[in-house]
Parts: sequence; C-alpha cells; structure tokens
Amino acid sequence: IDCSLNGVSHICLVKHVGVSLLGSDHSTVIIPGSSFFMSVSQSTAPNNSPKLMDLLDDTVPGIGTYEDFNTIDWVREKSKDRDRHREITNKSKQSTVALLFSISDAFSGWLLMLLIGLMSGALAGGIDIAAHWMTDLKEGVCLNGLWFNHEHCCWASNETTFQERDKCPQWKSWAELMVGVSEGPGLYVVNYFMYMCWALLFAFLAVILVRAFAPYACGSGIPEIKTVLSGFIIRGYLGKWTLIIKTITLVLAVSSGLSLGKEGPLVHVACCCANILCHFFTKYRRNEAKRREVLSAASAVGVSVAFGAPIGGVLFSLEEVSYYFPLKTLWRSFFAALVAAFTLRSINPFGNSRLVLFYVEFHTPWHLLELIPFVLLGIFGGLWGAFFIRANIAWCRLRKNTCLGHYPVLEVVVVTLLTAFLAFPIEYTRMSSSELISELFNDCGLLDSSKLCGYTSNSGSASGSVNATAANGLGARLAGPDLYTAMWQLALALLFIPSMAVGAIAGRLLGVCMEQLAIRHHERDIFRGWCSPGADCITPGLYAMVGAAACLGGVTRMTVSLVVIMFELTGGLEYIVPLMAAAMTSKWVADALGRESIYEAHIRLNGYPFLEAKEEFRHKTLATDVMRPRRGDPLLSVLTESGMTVEEVERLIADTTYSGFPVVISQQSPRLVGFVLRRDLVISLENARRNQEGVVSMSPILFTECDPPMSPSAPPAVKLRSILDLSPFTVTVHTPMEIVVDIFRKLGLRQCLVIQNGRLLGIITKKDILKHMAQMANRDPDSILFN
Amino acid sequence: IDCSLNGVSHICLVKHVGVSLLGSDHSTVIIPGSSFFMSVSQSTAPNNSPKLMDLLDDTVPGIGTYEDFNTIDWVREKSKDRDRHREITNKSKQSTVALLFSISDAFSGWLLMLLIGLMSGALAGGIDIAAHWMTDLKEGVCLNGLWFNHEHCCWASNETTFQERDKCPQWKSWAELMVGVSEGPGLYVVNYFMYMCWALLFAFLAVILVRAFAPYACGSGIPEIKTVLSGFIIRGYLGKWTLIIKTITLVLAVSSGLSLGKEGPLVHVACCCANILCHFFTKYRRNEAKRREVLSAASAVGVSVAFGAPIGGVLFSLEEVSYYFPLKTLWRSFFAALVAAFTLRSINPFGNSRLVLFYVEFHTPWHLLELIPFVLLGIFGGLWGAFFIRANIAWCRLRKNTCLGHYPVLEVVVVTLLTAFLAFPIEYTRMSSSELISELFNDCGLLDSSKLCGYTSNSGSASGSVNATAANGLGARLAGPDLYTAMWQLALALLFIPSMAVGAIAGRLLGVCMEQLAIRHHERDIFRGWCSPGADCITPGLYAMVGAAACLGGVTRMTVSLVVIMFELTGGLEYIVPLMAAAMTSKWVADALGRESIYEAHIRLNGYPFLEAKEEFRHKTLATDVMRPRRGDPLLSVLTESGMTVEEVERLIADTTYSGFPVVISQQSPRLVGFVLRRDLVISLENARRNQEGVVSMSPILFTECDPPMSPSAPPAVKLRSILDLSPFTVTVHTPMEIVVDIFRKLGLRQCLVIQNGRLLGIITKKDILKHMAQMANRDPDSILFN
Repeated sequence: IDCSLNGVSHICLVKHVGVSLLGSDHSTVIIPGSSFFMSVSQSTAPNNSPKLMDLLDDTVPGIGTYEDFNTIDWVREKSKDRDRHREITNKSKQSTVALLFSISDAFSGWLLMLLIGLMSGALAGGIDIAAHWMTDLKEGVCLNGLWFNHEHCCWASNETTFQERDKCPQWKSWAELMVGVSEGPGLYVVNYFMYMCWALLFAFLAVILVRAFAPYACGSGIPEIKTVLSGFIIRGYLGKWTLIIKTITLVLAVSSGLSLGKEGPLVHVACCCANILCHFFTKYRRNEAKRREVLSAASAVGVSVAFGAPIGGVLFSLEEVSYYFPLKTLWRSFFAALVAAFTLRSINPFGNSRLVLFYVEFHTPWHLLELIPFVLLGIFGGLWGAFFIRANIAWCRLRKNTCLGHYPVLEVVVVTLLTAFLAFPIEYTRMSSSELISELFNDCGLLDSSKLCGYTSNSGSASGSVNATAANGLGARLAGPDLYTAMWQLALALLFIPSMAVGAIAGRLLGVCMEQLAIRHHERDIFRGWCSPGADCITPGLYAMVGAAACLGGVTRMTVSLVVIMFELTGGLEYIVPLMAAAMTSKWVADALGRESIYEAHIRLNGYPFLEAKEEFRHKTLATDVMRPRRGDPLLSVLTESGMTVEEVERLIADTTYSGFPVVISQQSPRLVGFVLRRDLVISLENARRNQEGVVSMSPILFTECDPPMSPSAPPAVKLRSILDLSPFTVTVHTPMEIVVDIFRKLGLRQCLVIQNGRLLGIITKKDILKHMAQMANRDPDSILFN
Repeated sequence: IDCSLNGVSHICLVKHVGVSLLGSDHSTVIIPGSSFFMSVSQSTAPNNSPKLMDLLDDTVPGIGTYEDFNTIDWVREKSKDRDRHREITNKSKQSTVALLFSISDAFSGWLLMLLIGLMSGALAGGIDIAAHWMTDLKEGVCLNGLWFNHEHCCWASNETTFQERDKCPQWKSWAELMVGVSEGPGLYVVNYFMYMCWALLFAFLAVILVRAFAPYACGSGIPEIKTVLSGFIIRGYLGKWTLIIKTITLVLAVSSGLSLGKEGPLVHVACCCANILCHFFTKYRRNEAKRREVLSAASAVGVSVAFGAPIGGVLFSLEEVSYYFPLKTLWRSFFAALVAAFTLRSINPFGNSRLVLFYVEFHTPWHLLELIPFVLLGIFGGLWGAFFIRANIAWCRLRKNTCLGHYPVLEVVVVTLLTAFLAFPIEYTRMSSSELISELFNDCGLLDSSKLCGYTSNSGSASGSVNATAANGLGARLAGPDLYTAMWQLALALLFIPSMAVGAIAGRLLGVCMEQLAIRHHERDIFRGWCSPGADCITPGLYAMVGAAACLGGVTRMTVSLVVIMFELTGGLEYIVPLMAAAMTSKWVADALGRESIYEAHIRLNGYPFLEAKEEFRHKTLATDVMRPRRGDPLLSVLTESGMTVEEVERLIADTTYSGFPVVISQQSPRLVGFVLRRDLVISLENARRNQEGVVSMSPILFTECDPPMSPSAPPAVKLRSILDLSPFTVTVHTPMEIVVDIFRKLGLRQCLVIQNGRLLGIITKKDILKHMAQMANRDPDSILFN
C-alpha cells in the first residue's frame, strides 16, 4: 500500500500547502491552485435544496462551520446530526411526505454506499485497463488497433500458439515499426530509446498536470486521509479536481514505470468519489462527522479494489485509517467494498475473471520446518520496512530543507529517466510492478513459459550430475539455466522497486533456494517426507507472498488486515499461519527499530494534528503541566457572562489568536459558565453590527439567561447565549494526562477546560496535547502546525 | 449461535442468581453452590507471586477492588495498568533481571493467547468427539469397542461398501442386542424406547450436575458474557467449576437431543478457559480491564472453534460481544482464534480434515434472478427471528413469574421426553442438529446416498412424463420419490429445532422447489441459460446456507460477522452476495418488528447493567433531568474535605447505600474536590480503627493536602487523601443526555458528577442512565437491578 510513497512522492509539488498558508515562501504556488478546488466540503455554500431539508438551518449563516486547516468538534457534529434525526422523526408523524422523506433519509446511507462502490469500482477498472495499455505502449503498438494492449492484440491473432502467446505479427515493437529492423542490436537500441521517451513523456505530463490543476493530487494520500478522518479539514483535498487529476496522473505515473503501487492512490480516489457523492445527500453534506463515516467506508473500498479483498479492505479501514468507526459503518463499508469488488470484476480488467492480477492457488501444503524461512522473511521485512521509512523521511526532509524542493519537475524527470534507463535491460523491472508480483506469486504449471519456471523438465536440459535424482522422479523440479538467469535478474531488480515487490522477490529467491535444497538433499532426515514424485516439494510462490506480506507489514505496520488481504488472495486458511508468522515477526522487528509506520511518519513530518489512537500515552504528567496559561504567563483570556461591551470583546478577539474563549461568571469569581468559539463570536458580532438596530461599540454583550436590569438610555444588549456551549468538557488540574488524552481521542474533542475546586484555571487544546507529546518524546514541539 | 437458547435454557436452574442475592426466595439454592466457585476473579486473594510482581501492592488490602455484582471503573483500571507498566519499564533500566521480567511481561499476552487457543481448541475437539459418540449411543453400540461411534465402527469393518457405509454387522442397535430381533415392528419399538431412555438419562444427568455444582453453567452464556465484558462483575461465572460442568453438560445436552447449538456454550467455555489461564499472569489477574481484553479474545476463540471461522470469530467478538476492544486485542484475538482453529483441526473430530462438520464447496454460479428467493429467505429469517425472540422471552418470563420456575428438573425432563418422542420417527430430527445442517448444506454428488439427493438419476426411477426433459440431459436432476419423502419430513422437522437448522431447512425446501421449477420450465425465458446438460441448474445447498444465515441473523442481528463466517465456510467470494442480501433483509425485517437481539433481550430480562453501544440515545433530555437528587429529594450526601469526624462519616455510610460520595470544600460552598468510593472508605476506616493509634469516633477525617491547624489535645486525624479520586468526571446541568451517555459508553464510567457554575449539584450513575433509558422507552425502570 505504501509502495506509492517512494514513487508518487516524486511528483509531489506542494506537500505543505498548510505551511505555505501559514506564511512560507511557497505561497505563490498555492494560491492560484486553490481557486480550482470548488471544495465540496464548504458547508457554508448557499443552500439550494428543497424546503424539507432546511429543517435545521442556522439563524446566522456560518455559525457551526469550520475554517480550513482546523479540527472539527466531533461532539458538536454528532449532536447536530442527532438533532436533525430527531426533527425528521418528529415531522414524519405529521404527514406522509415527511414520512417518505424520513424513510428515504434512513436509506440514503445505503444508496450512497452503493454509488461509491459502483463509481470506485468503475474507476479502478478504467485505471487498470488504461495503465496496462500505456505500459505496453512504451514497447510497441498493435497494428490491428491502437487501443489493443499487447495481450489483447495477440489474442485476436490466430497465428500464435499457447506456448508463444506473447509473440504475434500484429504486435510491432517501435523499432520494427520505425526503422524496419526486426533483429540485431539496432532494434534493441531503438526500443530502449523509445521506452525512455515514452516514460519521460508520461512522467512529465503527470507532473505538469498535478502542478497546474491539483497540487493535492500528489503523494500516496493515506497520511492526509488519516488526518482528515481524525477530524481535520483540508478543503479541496477530496474535491473533484483532485479526483480527475489523480486518476489521470495515476495512470501516467504507473505507465511511466516509476516504482509505485496504486493502493494508496486508489484509496484517495475512492475517498474523492465518496466526498463528491456526499454532496448529493444533505445528511452527509452538512455534517462533518457523518461525512467522515462515509470516508472511512470509502477507504475500505479503495483497498478492496486495489487488492480484490473486500473483507481485508474493511479491516484495513478499521485498523489503519479510521478514527471514528461505529459498527453501523462497519456493515456499510463491507457493503460498499463488495459492490466495488463486483463492479471491478464485471469490468474484468485482467481478463481472468478475478479481481486482481495476482490471484493465486497453491496446492502443496507447507511443512512445520518451513516456519524458519518464513520467520527469516519476517525479519527481512521488518528491517526493510524500518530502513525504507527512514530513507523516505530523510529524502522528504532533504527536499523540504534544501533547494531540491524548488525543482520538482526536474526531480521527477531525472528520477524517471534514471528508472527507465536502469529498468529496460532487466525483464523483471521492465514489466509493471503488479505484473511482476503476479509472476512471483505464481505456482509453476507444466506449460508455464516464464523463466521463473525454468526447471530442467521445462527447459529440457537435464544436468548429468543429477541423473540419480531425476530417475527418482524429482528431477523435474531441479533448477535449469533459465531459472538461474531469472534469479540473477531478480536479485538485481531488488535494488529499486517498491516494498511489496521487494518482499516478493526476496521471498521467491529464498523459496527457490529452499526448493533446490530440499530436492538435492531429499534423503536427509530434515527433508524426509517433503518431496514425493510427481508433486512439488515446496511452493516458491508462497514464499514470494510471505515475503511481500512481511515487507508491506514492515512499512505499514498493518497486522490483521494484511493477513486477511493475503488470505483473500489465496483463499485457503491453510496458508494463514506462514503469513501470520511473517507479519508478526516483521512488525516486532520494525517496531523495535522505530515505532512509527510510514503513514504516521509522514503525518508527523507534515505537522498534522493527529492524535494516534494506537499508542498509549505512558507519561506521568498531569493536566496542570500541559494547560495554558503556564506559570508566569499572562492570565487566561476569558469573557464574562455579563459586563463586557462589544468593543472590549472585539479588542480581545483582535489581540489574541485563540480559537475560543471560556465564559465565566466574573473576573473575580472565575466559575465556568460555558465556552464560545472565536469563529462563532466573530460572525455573531459582525451580524449584530450589521443587522441589529442600535448596536454600538458600547453595547453590552450578554451570555446570561435573563437580562440584568439596565438603564433605558443604555444601548441595546447583544445577546449571545445561543452561541454559547453550555456543556464544555472539563477536567481537574489533578487529572493525569493519560486520561485527558484518552478523553480527547475517544470523544474527539478540540479543547477541554481545566478546573480546580470549581474555579477555571486553564485550557488544554489538541495542539497543546500534541506539543506536549512531542516534547515528552524529545521531538520539536513546534513541528505541530495546526489546531 | 443463539440456538443454544431455546434448548439449554431449559437446563437453566437459577438464571437469576443476582436477583436471589438481592433477597429473592431462591437464596437457598445459591449460597451452597457459590462456595464451590473458588473464583479466580478475586483480586483480593493473598498474593504468593515472586517479589518482582509486587511492584504495585496497595498499602491497605482490598482498596481498589470491587464487590460482586458491581460495575468496574474502566478509567481507574486502565490507569492502574499504565502505572504498572511504567514501573516495570523504569525498573527494567536498573537490572538485567528486571529487564528480562519486563520482556517476559510484554510477551505474556501472546503466551496467554497461545494457551487459550490450545486449551479451547482441545476442549472443543473433545466435546465434538464425545457428543458424536453419545448421540450414536442412543441408537446402538459397537461390538468392536464401546468407544467407537457408528461411523468409526463401520470404518473399521471390511464388510461394508461405500454405498452402504452406515451399515455393518459390528454396529448393533439396542433392539438387536437386547431382544435379538433384527426386523419388524418389535425392533422399532425397542429402539424407540431405548432412544428415549438414553435421552432422558443424559438430560437428567445434565440438569442435576448444573443444579448441584455450577448454577452459572446454565444457558447460552453470551448475554452474561456481554455484560461481564462491559465491566460487570459476576464472581464464579467464569470459574473452573463452571468450566468443568459446562463442558460435561454441553456434551450431555447435545447428546440428549435437546435442540440447541453449541456455539453460545463454546464461547462460554472459551471465556472460562481464558479466565482461569489469566490466573497465572499477574498482569491480567490483578486488573479487571486487562482481563476483559483477554475475554474479548476468548469469545472470538469460541466462535472460531464453533464454526471453524477464525476471521468471523474475531469480527463476531468485535461486533457482537465486546465493549472495549483496542486494536492490539484485535490482532491477539486473531492469533488465538487461529491457534484454536488449528488445534481443533489437528484433533480432526469430524474425520474430514475440516474444522466443521458443515464445510461445503459449491460449483454452480448463481443467477441474478435468484436474488428474489434469497431476499424471500431473508424476510422469512427476519420474521422467524422476531417471533423466536418474543416466544423465548415470553417463556422465560413465564418461568420467572409462575410456579414453573420452581420445578426446573421436571421442566427439563418433560421437554426432553417430548423432544425425544417427537424426534425419533423423523430421520432429520433424530440426527444431531449439526449433522442435519451438514446434510442440508451439502451439494449432491453422484454417489450421495442421502434421501435429499434422491433425484431420478440416483434413485433409478425415471418418471414417464419427463422423458423429453430426460433426453435433454436435464432429467438427472428431476426429483425422485426419495426426495419428496425427504421434503415432507423436513417440513415436519421445521417445527421444533433451533434457528440455524430452521433456516437451513426452509432454504433447502425453497431451493429444491426452485430447482424443479427451473428444470421443468427450462425453456421459459426467465430460466433460459440456467440449466445446461451435465451440470446443476441451481444449488439447493446454497439456499440452505442462505436460509441458515437469514434465521441466525434474525435472532442475533449479526451482520458482518455472520456473512464472514458463512464466507469462511464456503471459501468463495462468489457466494457472499446472496448471503449478504439475505442477512441485510433479515436484519431490516427483524429490526422493524423489535429492536433487540436475543442477547439484548435476555440482558434486559435479567436486569443487567449493560449500556448498549450500538443504539444511539435519541431523546432530548439534559443531565439535570437524570441526576440525583431529583427536585424535592433530600440534598446530595457529600463529605467535606475537612471538618467531619469518623463517627459522622460512619453514620453517613450506615444511613445510605450509595456506592460513593463526592467530597466538597464545605457544605456552604459545595465546590467539588474529589470523589471517594464507599468500599474504599469503609476499608480505610476499618483499617484506621484497627491499626492507627488513637483513632476514636471523634477523630477528624481529612481529605486535604496540608493539615489545618489543630489543638494538640485533639485526637489524631485520619488522612484519606490517598483514596480520594481527585479527577472525577463532571458534566454541567446543561449537558445533553446523549453526550452523557456517549461519555459513559466510551470511557466506561460508573458515575459522573453534575456541576453548575462550579457548584456541585448532583450525581449520575450508570444505573440512573439505564433507568432513564428504560423510562424513555416506556419500560419499567425498576427492572434495572444492578449498579
């Protein structure tokens, strides 16, 4: 899933949009781009929907919405949804239309899921077909029709045999077409050149498109989606331009040969679909919490189509991506994931009636002793994962801190050229990484023409020294020269391809070694009973799969979902144990070298406000150590429930940058009354100044329930109790931070007030907690950028 | 899973142990029984473990523990665990021994899971083998060896052919053995009589064992386990006597022919194993929250061995049973479930190398139009589920409210006799319900001797009217007379067997009807393309499976886990869509007729304090409407942080039954300082009276940090700040109840204090919330019995 990161991230232009908005030098790149987004997450958009949907319109527009790069208040959003639901239920008893509306409202979630499944499945199918065609385009073209890829071209031809199904006269390599040669070094050089040209063209197009239209379309997307799901707002990140550009550039990037997986981007694409479709359902358009439920389901859909594993996708969403995942969502996610999987299958992009290119069926059982190489693969995967994360983060940091970040197009072009130059000579790097993985997972049949199946029986050359073994009936599986060539090429290919393929290659290599070992020493005690004539001793394809799982696990730290995804690929409980052993070892090894997965590392690199639910807060600090104001700081900025004027409040707003203010009884008796958000306050005051008669700077502001007695000559009061949150969350100064962190995580808070013996003493925001956590882990607390 | 409920509940003697402890007339039954339990959940047990484990011994024994039938404080338990972890981590830096201990502590969770998996898998295997043997014992005995069941007996014999593999001379029915007859009505009558005798004996033994040794061993167990997992304490419910008796009686009850499933009981057995094994690990023995993590995993293990579906088991635990299910537990549950599944498979109780008796492989794809019968099955399942829950609850209520409850042994005996009397004549009710389900799910092969496969080709009799069809190559699947007989018998069997079998029968019947319809009208447009010569038109076994899923879904309201369990049984994504359609319809239909699943209905019937996480609280009440004291009630009983004497506090304790008291600054200024639990207070006061010198009734009690000035002649103060919870959870009077309920659920609170403008006004306990919810749903609030 993360494989995407080492490739697509080259295409990243402006990863740090947030930073630039906060005043970095990138801002020129951003501002023009962001006008394209036409964000669908703008709850403030004018409301054109029918009357019935306006049940809960706010009196003052804008109240209850959020600014960009801010965190939502889950409690408020969920309350809003419950209010809406209550109102609809009450109305439904009054008229038939309202009843019908209430029913359609109840089922709209399912309809939405259906649409997301259909749309994502169709897009994934389209991407697969297009990428396949364009990958082949780098090598040649079909004379029967430009739109055929290599395989389809030769299917249509009658002149091929099954053995040579990849060779047919209709398919012309560029050299044959342009120069006319069909043999010799000239052909090779021309093809090499054309291959690089096409790769360069695709990569250049991709980077230009992203740069011009949708800077958010860069990167894997999963770190940002995790952050969005935890309640952060990045307008446009899941908008329609991002969707269009991401889809096109994904095809281009895959075809250009950049080493990346399409799993991360497919999750992003599915989330974009979901976000766009939410626009058509008031229930989801106007509620940030409900929308995030849908996005959680969409991330399950993304994995479902990437791996053809609906159950694994749901577990991935649950384990890895989601923050708020009620059980209702689990069921709906599963539905959407299934719809997507079946849509993709009916499109049948791989021509094998399967959801994925690398569906496998193994037949040979594994032996208990084989757990040793499986655990070794797990260790390899863990080491590789830890190494990959460090290297990736170091590269990103380099790009961020040096002038490298100023030449993204150049970077992509250079990397593409280098990749293409190195990839062409080796067969295994020339093919796309999913084809490679498919070939590695494959169990060798009798008719297999792949070099990886170059056993003596297939290649026809029996070595003299092994005649005894061959007579034994086992010789058929002895390695032939083709297999040796394949193994050297694979070992070379190990050097520059994404995680899953690295793991698969390492696994296959180890598997073939084990196989040859078992065959050559089949009479030894430890291998006794492994080999029987006519059957395979061991399955090198299984090793490839275990290796792939181990490396993927090391990078992403997935556990259950990883094993379930692989289980869905093989379809047999039989092979779960090797996968589990490898995944477990890999996670332990990688965790010992660094706690963070690649996603978390990127979240931290980018300073997103993400409160990790998995890792427990282990320090013994108290709320009083974290709250603001600290000892020695000026007092907490509070409002009083009466006695302040419009001018005073406006000055307070102008002087501070806090996103909300506690309201107390009086400065002398700081007993908490409620909490008011800055944005709501600003909007209400502007609204009062504009629309309420007689409001002047000296008008008093009242948060009280009943009006205090006032002289008739005084200006009219601005009553703001309606925007006051009367039930802010509070903790005491003695509350351990571990409990505070738990409350923030589980309830999705933005802030929490700190009380001692009934007196308000301070405030803790999510940002304060994240800064505190960074500090306790000896990291720079200023890396947390957002609220 | 719930099938257990309609059978095993007959064996229930004292379902309402809690009630009886609260003063019902059952108490004579309970008190002797409870002395057997040797509960492992007694955290107060003397601590014999090595010194290193005593890191966090409490100063006063008993502080921080709970009474029976009380709810734990999740926040406190989790804090305790974090403190323990912190201490171990700190110590591990000091010495190598401590480092090794810290590592072993970290891995103890995995070791525990391994042991639970092994033990549960082995027990499940033993239960399967024993039940199989004893079921056959009702019909006859093997002369080669008493310990062979029917199948094994005839395997050992050489004289049987494959076609008649159930008939061999070594296997003697009771009539043959006792009377000597081998033909005629005499044989039938004697066998009938012996069948009933054995059934009666088994049932009587089961009921007596439960009655004498472990009253908690009765019933399905899942409602109680759900309640325990949500934080309730029922000592002995998961103890070793319960385990032993439950295992034995499960075998007896299944063999006696009582219609029940073993899924619920297997979950209970696995949880008992887990609880007993926890005893060996300090980390889990002494922490109620950590223990519940392990129990969650154990319930996954139970389902894993019951259905042979490890992934489904984990999802079942997540969806249906668990309350607190962190992601770490997900991974460990999966591990334990896998270990258990493979242990069971290596025992191989069914002789088919499969985990379950009803593993199936289908070969024919389904047609889109078949979704109509599948949805019909879903509707049937939903209706049946709703009906079953009502009937079951009505019966339990009857037993509770009338004299029926006084004669449990008689009830079981009568029901057993009636079941056996009705079951013997029909082949499908005579066999055990898992064998029946296995037969119903089965796809008919060519050599199948089952009557359900009595097609014309198999039975040999071709009807004349269908010659044309037969010539067409389709005749082989036309129904023969055997199949018709089987269908009538199945229709009769529908009347009195558990959910899953009811669904399977209904499904099979519908499936055969559809099949015959399709064959006889294969030339019609709608059936065109369904039938091709030499292949099946449709798979009646799939209908049976869909029906089983629908009925199970209607009763338990499982969704994802149900579909995944069935998916693991079939092993193909292909058939997920029919299962999903049926499960979805079934849930919708059943939900429309009553919101509660059978488990929730039983939890409510028994008055357990269970706060359902799935259903949202939809009412618009505020904290002030729920808190105690209500308007007009006497004031809230509070302690003051200083100024009270030992005598005053003891009088307050004696006068009230509250399980805790808020501590305020003074009666005049009720500003909250903290909260102290009744149990801790009582233990501390007793301890002070006993061990602290000079403590008399007039000694002041201090909760303050620093001592107030006191005259030297005054008696020494009892300082209790250490037992004071300085960070009690608070809400304001304006907090909507929906948010309060959310906080209680997500944080696992016992109580919460209500504040207005810094002044303590009241308290809300879990029981108050449950009573309030009962009231809002027009139920009797006094049905909530526990705290």
